Amino acid sequence: MPPDPPETAPEPLDVIGVGSPLVDILAPTTDDVLERVGLEKGSMELVDLARAEHIYAAMGPTTEMSGGSAANTVVGVAALGGRAGFVGKVGDDTLGRVFSHDIAAAGVVFGPVADRAGSTADAEATGTGRCLVLVTGEGERTMATHLGVATTITPEGLPLDLVVQGRLLYLEGYLWDLPPAKEAMRRALDAVHDHDGSVALTLSDSFCVERHRRDFLDLVNGGVDVLFANEEEIISLFSTGSFDAAVSAVEETGLLAALTRGAKGSVVVTPNGPVSVPAAPVDRVVDTTGAGDLFAAGFLFGLTRGAGPEESARLGGLCAAEIISHLGARPQADLRALAAEAGLTV
Amino acid sequence: MPPDPPETAPEPLDVIGVGSPLVDILAPTTDDVLERVGLEKGSMELVDLARAEHIYAAMGPTTEMSGGSAANTVVGVAALGGRAGFVGKVGDDTLGRVFSHDIAAAGVVFGPVADRAGSTADAEATGTGRCLVLVTGEGERTMATHLGVATTITPEGLPLDLVVQGRLLYLEGYLWDLPPAKEAMRRALDAVHDHDGSVALTLSDSFCVERHRRDFLDLVNGGVDVLFANEEEIISLFSTGSFDAAVSAVEETGLLAALTRGAKGSVVVTPNGPVSVPAAPVDRVVDTTGAGDLFAAGFLFGLTRGAGPEESARLGGLCAAEIISHLGARPQADLRALAAEAGLTV
Repeated sequence: MPPDPPETAPEPLDVIGVGSPLVDILAPTTDDVLERVGLEKGSMELVDLARAEHIYAAMGPTTEMSGGSAANTVVGVAALGGRAGFVGKVGDDTLGRVFSHDIAAAGVVFGPVADRAGSTADAEATGTGRCLVLVTGEGERTMATHLGVATTITPEGLPLDLVVQGRLLYLEGYLWDLPPAKEAMRRALDAVHDHDGSVALTLSDSFCVERHRRDFLDLVNGGVDVLFANEEEIISLFSTGSFDAAVSAVEETGLLAALTRGAKGSVVVTPNGPVSVPAAPVDRVVDTTGAGDLFAAGFLFGLTRGAGPEESARLGGLCAAEIISHLGARPQADLRALAAEAGLTV
Repeated sequence: MPPDPPETAPEPLDVIGVGSPLVDILAPTTDDVLERVGLEKGSMELVDLARAEHIYAAMGPTTEMSGGSAANTVVGVAALGGRAGFVGKVGDDTLGRVFSHDIAAAGVVFGPVADRAGSTADAEATGTGRCLVLVTGEGERTMATHLGVATTITPEGLPLDLVVQGRLLYLEGYLWDLPPAKEAMRRALDAVHDHDGSVALTLSDSFCVERHRRDFLDLVNGGVDVLFANEEEIISLFSTGSFDAAVSAVEETGLLAALTRGAKGSVVVTPNGPVSVPAAPVDRVVDTTGAGDLFAAGFLFGLTRGAGPEESARLGGLCAAEIISHLGARPQADLRALAAEAGLTV
């Protein structure tokens, strides 16, 4: 009788993202339309199904592409050559099949969150989430998100076996908008730390920070290891009047943080102090959707490959520059080739 | 008692297109994938649902955009400033809602084809049609189309009141793949001629011509007024060995014909003989999907505005150049502005 094959642990993944799976529905639009449907330019608003339908009706011809903040990030990691996974909850419908196809086709291991037996989802929570993305002339995006079944994520449904395969867990701040997800994320975070992994958090959106400042401050002061935020978000988190004051506040936490500033590049905060990294050049900004997500992709991939924070931020900036040069938040160019061209072969 | 309001006829439309409403599912791909799934490069193949799923599974991350040959054309007419309508059959599902939203948002009057009372659609004919578009490196597109409910179009379901509002009826040759549509198209064609309108036909695809050569020859020799074809299609229609011989055959029909030749531009056949029109310049060909459809849009819009065939062909070439410079078969740039820049203010 042949001996039992040796038990092999599943291959570790570089980055596991957790977030709301969304299909983006994008259309170029005008300030007039934003005003008419009552959306604040540049923001992300959570909307119910009726409001989503109302906004959709006001949009011009659309393009549909898989999106979702953390999902975009792990797709970017995979495009750079990393091993990535994604955990999120989709519905049994057309948009769910589109999302599942696209993330697997991008080379990301997808771990769907299971339904909790006997769960009573609220009536609104049907269907895969979608994000209406209204892109105005200068490439700025305004988003209205209907989360659908993503709101029914529970600690019990989480595929923890996949989560702990990741050397780095990446959480989107948007998850704190889903009450049961908060407990699920705490469980995931503890499990990853128990497995000697690291945890990164993005603050996602300044309105999101306003809604969950207390939770995010708790995480920043013990819970996460890496922090992503843009200028507005980090100022909001620490309720400081200026970016410089926010940077000082970040320094006091001792976290590794990457703070993005659009065309002004990024500031990386390390134990040795803050370092400014210029943005990568872009011919024409078409659509800023996903800029932060892809910055995080490059930064995290750099870290997992042993690059320093500054070089990782350069790689993040390069990925962000690619994503804003076209419509949609998933990479279209070969990110590995771009990184190699720029001498960033981490 | 106030008098009855005067009866007003509905405002005439410039072009009404009839065709299969499709949502395009596009992905960049490689020759290897085409070979693996058994698709002939550059062709359009009709596939059943199982084969569509098989091909979809082999595709990379996709982008979804409304498409459909005649639908693309009328969207182009509307983008140029024309009044356009579209007639086709969608299902009561996500893709149907996407198609209906997008065509209305493009400013086209959509007349859905009704179900025939008591019709027994075949089991395959469920759901809105979709077209898998595999784009290879040089921008060439290979298509696998699952027509879904578009195959259940019937003469009785046709909104003839909308059809006869058009000064010009535009039919896609693909419709002849749907047996009940053949009779429906004959009815639409007669109704439009009774209302002093004109009828244009595109041959759609060389394999389509092979399948329906007899029908198409009948239409060309009495039935349609304007003919669109590319080089392969017109050679196939007349079973000639060369393009020049095919042009001579077209001349004998007395039709107005626009024959497209890709980068070589087009040849317009008029009662005064054939005229060559150069292609409009394109920086980089990204995706040729919709090139013929948008050529037809410019040509037809020119005709309805009283432009001569040669100027109309120039406008067609300009629209085709826009569509092949990006992914997808619906215009992204302002076609009216492009036409004005090129001095083609018809």
